[in-house]
Amino acid sequence: MLQTLARAAVLVLLPALAALAADGPPARDLSDGVQAYRLSHERSILQQLETLGRLRSVAADPAGLAATARTLLGWLTQRGFQARLIQTGAQAPPLVYGQWSQPGARRTVIFYAHYDGQPVVPSQWHSDPFVPQMRTAALSAGGRQIDWHAATPPFDAEWRMFGRAVADDKASIIAFLTAFDALRNLGRAPAVNLKVLWEGEEEAGSAHLQPALQANRRLLAADLLLIGDGPVHQSRRPMLYFGARGTLGVTLTIYGPVTPLHDGHYGNWAPNPAVMAAVLLARMRDEQGHILIPGFSDHVRALTPAERQALTALPVVDPMLRRQFALGRTEAQDGLAASLMRPALNVRGLTAGGVGGTAANAIPATAMISLDFRLVPDQTPAQIRARVERFLIERGWTIVTQEPDAATRLAHARVVRVQWEPGYPAYRVDIGSPGMRAVQAAARRSGAGPLVLMPMMGASVPMFLFAQTLQVPVVGLPIVNHDDSQHAPDENLRLQNLWDGIQTYAAMMGTLNW
Amino acid sequence: MLQTLARAAVLVLLPALAALAADGPPARDLSDGVQAYRLSHERSILQQLETLGRLRSVAADPAGLAATARTLLGWLTQRGFQARLIQTGAQAPPLVYGQWSQPGARRTVIFYAHYDGQPVVPSQWHSDPFVPQMRTAALSAGGRQIDWHAATPPFDAEWRMFGRAVADDKASIIAFLTAFDALRNLGRAPAVNLKVLWEGEEEAGSAHLQPALQANRRLLAADLLLIGDGPVHQSRRPMLYFGARGTLGVTLTIYGPVTPLHDGHYGNWAPNPAVMAAVLLARMRDEQGHILIPGFSDHVRALTPAERQALTALPVVDPMLRRQFALGRTEAQDGLAASLMRPALNVRGLTAGGVGGTAANAIPATAMISLDFRLVPDQTPAQIRARVERFLIERGWTIVTQEPDAATRLAHARVVRVQWEPGYPAYRVDIGSPGMRAVQAAARRSGAGPLVLMPMMGASVPMFLFAQTLQVPVVGLPIVNHDDSQHAPDENLRLQNLWDGIQTYAAMMGTLNW
Repeated sequence: MLQTLARAAVLVLLPALAALAADGPPARDLSDGVQAYRLSHERSILQQLETLGRLRSVAADPAGLAATARTLLGWLTQRGFQARLIQTGAQAPPLVYGQWSQPGARRTVIFYAHYDGQPVVPSQWHSDPFVPQMRTAALSAGGRQIDWHAATPPFDAEWRMFGRAVADDKASIIAFLTAFDALRNLGRAPAVNLKVLWEGEEEAGSAHLQPALQANRRLLAADLLLIGDGPVHQSRRPMLYFGARGTLGVTLTIYGPVTPLHDGHYGNWAPNPAVMAAVLLARMRDEQGHILIPGFSDHVRALTPAERQALTALPVVDPMLRRQFALGRTEAQDGLAASLMRPALNVRGLTAGGVGGTAANAIPATAMISLDFRLVPDQTPAQIRARVERFLIERGWTIVTQEPDAATRLAHARVVRVQWEPGYPAYRVDIGSPGMRAVQAAARRSGAGPLVLMPMMGASVPMFLFAQTLQVPVVGLPIVNHDDSQHAPDENLRLQNLWDGIQTYAAMMGTLNW
Repeated sequence: MLQTLARAAVLVLLPALAALAADGPPARDLSDGVQAYRLSHERSILQQLETLGRLRSVAADPAGLAATARTLLGWLTQRGFQARLIQTGAQAPPLVYGQWSQPGARRTVIFYAHYDGQPVVPSQWHSDPFVPQMRTAALSAGGRQIDWHAATPPFDAEWRMFGRAVADDKASIIAFLTAFDALRNLGRAPAVNLKVLWEGEEEAGSAHLQPALQANRRLLAADLLLIGDGPVHQSRRPMLYFGARGTLGVTLTIYGPVTPLHDGHYGNWAPNPAVMAAVLLARMRDEQGHILIPGFSDHVRALTPAERQALTALPVVDPMLRRQFALGRTEAQDGLAASLMRPALNVRGLTAGGVGGTAANAIPATAMISLDFRLVPDQTPAQIRARVERFLIERGWTIVTQEPDAATRLAHARVVRVQWEPGYPAYRVDIGSPGMRAVQAAARRSGAGPLVLMPMMGASVPMFLFAQTLQVPVVGLPIVNHDDSQHAPDENLRLQNLWDGIQTYAAMMGTLNW
């Protein structure tokens, strides 16, 4: 019934909203107004998030993804958006597209988020991933289940809603919709034309995104694209990120004897692939994170003075995180933020033979190393592949792309199978350009606290893909808590982050101008 | 019925045998006579092995072990041995002990073997591990199943009998009994007093052996102990080994963040334990098998000229094995045999995070390294433990023995949990001593081909334990094929190896003298 009332309100308000000018009351009023709106609508906002959280929008459930897309399409249409689903492939979940053309607005901004979530293993969760559950705090902080439907708002802002995708990215979608509703409720028109692009295949690798963007370039013409993905700063302050590292994964398989050999009878003679893997790794990267592969950093673009200044201004969270993660040391000596501006060689996995109960006195037949590289501008996956392969060849390795046969293994002293994943480059936009300064100014009007400017996020988001295909600057506008167990069991959203996110989205939507 | 006939024959022959002198017909006649005996008894010899192979003598089946011990006790008693079971522990399988006192014999020799086998995973076998199955060759060579009961002996000596423990060590037990029967049939008395010691707990770690030896030192007084365990040389020639490397296992657990961390957000900053493990390993051992831990080889006893000469005389099997194992290189430049005379650091396992389908873009929380050291005289496990721990400490590691808590991890830059296994030292007897020369001379009388003298076996056999507790020289008298899939599925015995083993046991029993 609440939903019916909300829909009626939309219909009543629409003509008035469309008629409003793009400039309106000052930002302070806006921020206060949005906060007042949120305080009086907490229950319905969370009900929408709960509705969205109950939809099983994961790759394993195509029907759940389709239902989510239809629900979002309905929510946009109800609000007066010109909205439609863009099919990207026969079996692929559609893009949800919506457009709000604001008379008088000079700029157009695309708000991107994804509605799909990471796969779930329900047995690893403390509650059903698709029955959003409110708890008083993080589980690690002793959060206990609470019946929020029976509680009286305003709710404790430290409460968290648990469920798959509620943080990553359904919270951003709800923040966008709520910010729009709040503006409307305040009689305030958007300062820009709005375009919405909600993807349903991000967690599965966005295989159909680039062709879809390419095919819809005219439809998606814009002056700015805001990505509502990723967490805010560990200081819990609102954040913008102006780039993201690229990524490139690779699996190296190293070959020993064709079958595991008794290491009493053959150890010291038959090469041990676990040792070869260890020596190789130790020559690729040291314990301080330095990449030792010659030429690896040839194309690293230097930080601008404005970017260096932004880094210096970041709240220092290193001691807090060291305690939280129980780290006796860190690899980088210049702090977390600075270290994320560099390329990285991460070891995701390393395996050979067995340990503990599965250890046998044997020389393993193979060893495997799984790496992901994090790239920075202007490195490209092609350059990195070439550097790594050159390094391997110079170190005496014979590279194969398939499982080598016995003849190949016999003919070469060191055989490595190299399996590259597709990967994509990094992106970093000039933080000091007029458009970027405007985005910062708008975000500062949110009233959600001092803004954190991150020149580039350490994690990888395919910002380059939007920038390159749509020829548009891209900025990250995350809202969720950093400790949201994103991609893990018990994913959760801290309510204060949603409230702050609504403020930020409203400020962006209502005041962005350059 | 055959068994009943055989038993009757024993009873008839016993008085005559006991009356014979220790010296008898010349060795050449003995070897021919034993061969003739075997050729006319192949069916009954294999029937005994089949009977033994059907007994489920594995740690998981205490009743099977007990039944095996009772069967062996009966077989010894039937042959006129003073035999009994020695209980070693309430739940432990007994030692089968037998004694044959030969009037006029000056020396006493203990024949050791074990009657238990490695655990089985029947699904990994091509036939029931406890229903011995004859095949025409190794499975890798296209061996096909054959109904040997319906075939006419003599059987093809390349046939193999498949079943758990048929090679390791039931073949040695059958070879001993058959050699004894052959001597008796030839009217030839043993040249030495015989003691038999068949263990039922070797594959489970021999936990009760040392106390049992200690408690029965007087009963087990002897001049020599022959161990019927392990395979012969890869050249398929009969072999003696005069020592075996010791062993010492250890598991190292290396700690990163308390929980896996997103490597985009924290890579380059939070220490990656997989990298720490790789760097540590690369500093402990190089790709040529050199152990880099300072002082590791301090107590290595040099080879004697006779031992060096024996190594030089070994048949060269390296090229054959390189092809068989598809090795593009070897670690040691001086060949397999020489490399096995040195201590070894073998990596049994290495694991951190995930690879392939289980790879996540995360910094793993821990990495584990499983090692086994192979020790040579006069290294001791205590010395090696001390050297390794000093190395770790000097390299900045804080050693813990239990899972460290967060405070411990936070307080120390490098925390490693070190879990030592018990281990035992190596053993090597002087190959040039009179007793050892006598053993070699006897083995050369087997007629089973040129003898291979291995100063020390690469694999570990607790020879030191017998030598130390019983104060007796110990020599290895293996008979089974090196490619017997010992400790693995499809364990098998090549018939020619059993035939050669019978010759060797008969020569040892019938001619050993010093």
